[in-house]
Amino acid sequence: MDELNSESYTRFKIVISYDGSNYAGWQWQANKISVQQKIEEAIERLFQIKLRIHGSSRTDTGVHAMGMVAHFDIPSQSSVLMNMPTEKVSLALNAFLPLDIRIVDTQMVDSTFHARFSAKSKQYRYFIWNARHNNPILRSTAWHVPRPIDVDLMRQAASHIPGKKDFRSFANHHTYEIENSIRTVFRCSVRKAGPLITIIIHGDGFLYRMCRGIAGTITQVGSGKYQPHEVSNMIEKKNRIASGMTAPAHGLFLWKVYYV
Amino acid sequence: MDELNSESYTRFKIVISYDGSNYAGWQWQANKISVQQKIEEAIERLFQIKLRIHGSSRTDTGVHAMGMVAHFDIPSQSSVLMNMPTEKVSLALNAFLPLDIRIVDTQMVDSTFHARFSAKSKQYRYFIWNARHNNPILRSTAWHVPRPIDVDLMRQAASHIPGKKDFRSFANHHTYEIENSIRTVFRCSVRKAGPLITIIIHGDGFLYRMCRGIAGTITQVGSGKYQPHEVSNMIEKKNRIASGMTAPAHGLFLWKVYYV
Repeated sequence: MDELNSESYTRFKIVISYDGSNYAGWQWQANKISVQQKIEEAIERLFQIKLRIHGSSRTDTGVHAMGMVAHFDIPSQSSVLMNMPTEKVSLALNAFLPLDIRIVDTQMVDSTFHARFSAKSKQYRYFIWNARHNNPILRSTAWHVPRPIDVDLMRQAASHIPGKKDFRSFANHHTYEIENSIRTVFRCSVRKAGPLITIIIHGDGFLYRMCRGIAGTITQVGSGKYQPHEVSNMIEKKNRIASGMTAPAHGLFLWKVYYV
Repeated sequence: MDELNSESYTRFKIVISYDGSNYAGWQWQANKISVQQKIEEAIERLFQIKLRIHGSSRTDTGVHAMGMVAHFDIPSQSSVLMNMPTEKVSLALNAFLPLDIRIVDTQMVDSTFHARFSAKSKQYRYFIWNARHNNPILRSTAWHVPRPIDVDLMRQAASHIPGKKDFRSFANHHTYEIENSIRTVFRCSVRKAGPLITIIIHGDGFLYRMCRGIAGTITQVGSGKYQPHEVSNMIEKKNRIASGMTAPAHGLFLWKVYYV
């Protein structure tokens, strides 16, 4: 049966960029419009088939993506599939999608590929506009912090993040109660280009709102609310109350998902 | 009289950033909403005075600005003015402005300062997203060019632009018939960072749609429609027909206006 199934479906991996401003996050939600829903509707219109796509990650309302990944299966005997080279699938799906969601790559993959379970690591980026007045061009893609931020302090704070650690101090409650909260962060670095500060976080997995907890906390170190060394105490306390604020959703981007 | 006037008004220079997507350009237009109108309305609400502000430049519908400059005069006896330090004026005006327009700096200036006539030079930047599929985050701030662009060819083309020249070949008709079309371009350079290409043009002044004519033409050189050396022939012909396309408005930013 398994063999029959794997031969009768073609699995596609798609990479998706989206401006999350107008969506209730990635995942299906009752009475709200999600990115997943929009893509499933586009697939339905193109392939004339109702299906569920499987995303690599869930993003909250307002969070953006440059490289979200998802997979789905199309019956191999689909007449649309047989008449369309793979490199045209992105273009065809984009024709049915709003301009704030774009399929930027489509590939046929082995049936063992799973967008979520095959992912080895993920990179998130968090953007901050650090100037007295906001930048209107970045108003929905960067957190406006008007008070001065010392980037060197942020970097010292960020240096305490990488490693295999229990990160429950940076995650919102409802996940660490039900799952293992140990994750490995490979990199947490801070870049500055004029008033634009970028936090890059790369890890093998992330707890619910963990990136926003880290971004909020190290930004508060930069503005003097905490000392850099306090970050390692926060981690040790394994309690969300111990650390700093959750940075707003609209500064966060799921940047890239790695499968090797 | 002049002396009396100059003493009885306080002149303000403001620097404005805006996302031009929702406006019919900078300047007042009948039955359309302009950036200038929005700022004049904010000034009216703050200072309880109707006035006209004077911009350094006009930007077309959809064009953006990081550093537009304008000036206006407030009667020195204004009670609002007397009770508000200058550094609070930007904040107060922003409270009356939509989020896609921000006053990013306000200064009191000498009454001889004029946003347009005192300007020594201006820098524009033009953004291109050069990838098969568009970047949804940049969909209203960069021109999406899906075909391959050779940036080296663009740079060769751009090298023909700087100098004191008659630029009517890059300007739309209605200006060169009525004014001197000689301008000095100090710099025309092309940067690339991944799929993002930036054209930087700095000059002592620009003809109507000149930046978009230059951006469109050198991009067409990059995609193979013209040879780089043809750009100098285009300039010599002094005819808009001789050069390439006008790049779309939404990729263009008035980046900075220089007064020294």
